[in-house]
Amino acid sequence: MKVETLQEFCVQAMLKCGMSEGPARIAAEVLVTTDAWGVYSHGTRALRQYLKRMRAGGLKAQARPHIIHEGPAFAMLDADNALAMVSACRAMEIAIAKAKSAGIGYVTVKNSCHFGAAGYYANMAVKENMIGMAMSNVDTNVVAPSSKKPVIGCNPLAYAVPAGKEKPVFLDIAMSTVAAGKIAAAKFAGKRIPNTWYVDDEGLPTTDPSLYPEHGALQPMAGHKGFGLAILIEVLSAVLAGAAVTKQLKSWGLEDPANPTGHGHAFIAIDIAALMPLAAFQERMDQMIREIRNAPRAKGADRIYLPGEIEWQRYEEQKQKGLSLPPEVIDSLNGLADDLELERLF
Amino acid sequence: MKVETLQEFCVQAMLKCGMSEGPARIAAEVLVTTDAWGVYSHGTRALRQYLKRMRAGGLKAQARPHIIHEGPAFAMLDADNALAMVSACRAMEIAIAKAKSAGIGYVTVKNSCHFGAAGYYANMAVKENMIGMAMSNVDTNVVAPSSKKPVIGCNPLAYAVPAGKEKPVFLDIAMSTVAAGKIAAAKFAGKRIPNTWYVDDEGLPTTDPSLYPEHGALQPMAGHKGFGLAILIEVLSAVLAGAAVTKQLKSWGLEDPANPTGHGHAFIAIDIAALMPLAAFQERMDQMIREIRNAPRAKGADRIYLPGEIEWQRYEEQKQKGLSLPPEVIDSLNGLADDLELERLF
Repeated sequence: MKVETLQEFCVQAMLKCGMSEGPARIAAEVLVTTDAWGVYSHGTRALRQYLKRMRAGGLKAQARPHIIHEGPAFAMLDADNALAMVSACRAMEIAIAKAKSAGIGYVTVKNSCHFGAAGYYANMAVKENMIGMAMSNVDTNVVAPSSKKPVIGCNPLAYAVPAGKEKPVFLDIAMSTVAAGKIAAAKFAGKRIPNTWYVDDEGLPTTDPSLYPEHGALQPMAGHKGFGLAILIEVLSAVLAGAAVTKQLKSWGLEDPANPTGHGHAFIAIDIAALMPLAAFQERMDQMIREIRNAPRAKGADRIYLPGEIEWQRYEEQKQKGLSLPPEVIDSLNGLADDLELERLF
Repeated sequence: MKVETLQEFCVQAMLKCGMSEGPARIAAEVLVTTDAWGVYSHGTRALRQYLKRMRAGGLKAQARPHIIHEGPAFAMLDADNALAMVSACRAMEIAIAKAKSAGIGYVTVKNSCHFGAAGYYANMAVKENMIGMAMSNVDTNVVAPSSKKPVIGCNPLAYAVPAGKEKPVFLDIAMSTVAAGKIAAAKFAGKRIPNTWYVDDEGLPTTDPSLYPEHGALQPMAGHKGFGLAILIEVLSAVLAGAAVTKQLKSWGLEDPANPTGHGHAFIAIDIAALMPLAAFQERMDQMIREIRNAPRAKGADRIYLPGEIEWQRYEEQKQKGLSLPPEVIDSLNGLADDLELERLF
């Protein structure tokens, strides 16, 4: 599947739901890039559910995300329940503009929804030779140390940093130890899981993945550390954004698609050239990247990867040779075609 | 031991090493507050080694930290090898001033040293009704996934967020799974450790703490996630600060005290009132804090703690009843008194 073919299909689907071409092209670019990185859980697979929400009224096809308040180095956006890729890109563009004039820019978003892969937005800053960060709150699915039930979302955080001759370093992680999909996979394979992934209905660590999803909840990564970072993300992307916080936030996948979910996001851009000559920074990055990559390897290890390196390798390969989409993405895209009476791609 | 008594002793020690009273009082306040939180590893215990460095020439008693470059929302500080608590406080003050006028402020520091507990500086922002973040690079002591030897520091990150009637939420963590002290304690107790804490000389996970400290190295928290976050901190506090990066950085404890270590730091402040009325934010924070604290507890758990809550409890108690310092802090303070021919406190 050529990248352009999938992109065009996504655009057509969004147009069919009443979106205009500009925003549709932006969102298609976000989702297909995510697939090209190999992050299939957050790419075009999700478009079917997003557009179900749009047709049910929980997202607005002709939304008008707008700045409600701003200052020299910050802005607050009301997403007006637009498809979240559209408002997130807009917000990062504003963060980049603020950073251009002030050195750093911080932009919050409220009245949004699930924004897909945070890493896309962080990488928008890299294209402008800036450091980018993107984060969002999500519906509560992670326990606190000593809580029985989820109290906070697995709130994703991404950053991206440009280098010189090397690829940008970028990381896109959630604050749970692992994604729920890994527990589902262990359940399917009949394997035990480490006791740091999941808790049972009493809130106690378990090695039994068969409890998922009816019983139990995700554990935060590194215990109180991941829990604490999830709260920081909740503060920056929701409490201070005026968005729905923790239990107020609705699941984009499971709850009534006619109602907005209330997600909040935050974006930060730092203009490298404001602080030091870009070439000097790029050389410093290349040097650090090479030092780490060329460090002695652990017994049996093939190589040491920098954050994002695997994603960039997949990206180059799939851009060139076409996308190899896994069955669940193909199923979802076919379902989307059927929903909207478009011709199936597969 | 009264807080004020210990503070005065620290000031006298610093004066004896040639520091002026203003900076000495600032640093004493940082270190004693850290002890009052119960974070004894990063409080006054370290002063003896800092002042050894100062007397050997690696730190300057009459240093002049100064801004080398600044813009509307950022500044870069050259610490001039001052005692790092002094330059870190100065840097956070500048970040706060930038946030006051621009909404957010980002300040880097180079030519610095070990700055103690990052949480102190984050909490300086809270006193101004701002959100604070503080971070630093440290000498490499953590492996990458698949590396045999350390390639990055356990780079600390702290944040603090004011609330209304509730205590500020604050977290101060390193990017290793645990601090080395926990491995030493397991070794002393003759216990095995989880296989996520440490690697052996081949870079492979081990449950044997007896390897420490001659053999092996720390693992990053949550594997590639903690490794990736350590790199972000390295970028923000060192690569972009113009400070020593990874292997260039020297250990403040182990290497020649006559040479500067080259640490870099970064500080971020966000002015809440620039974005929303302070009272509204405080209420939103209180609500989230209470929702989490009052959530159903895991079987056998007494209560759910918010980040920083335990530290604030200890702080109130020790401020009132006096500090209960552990033996290794007392030993270090007595050693410091002997080094400088001051009267011992204990």
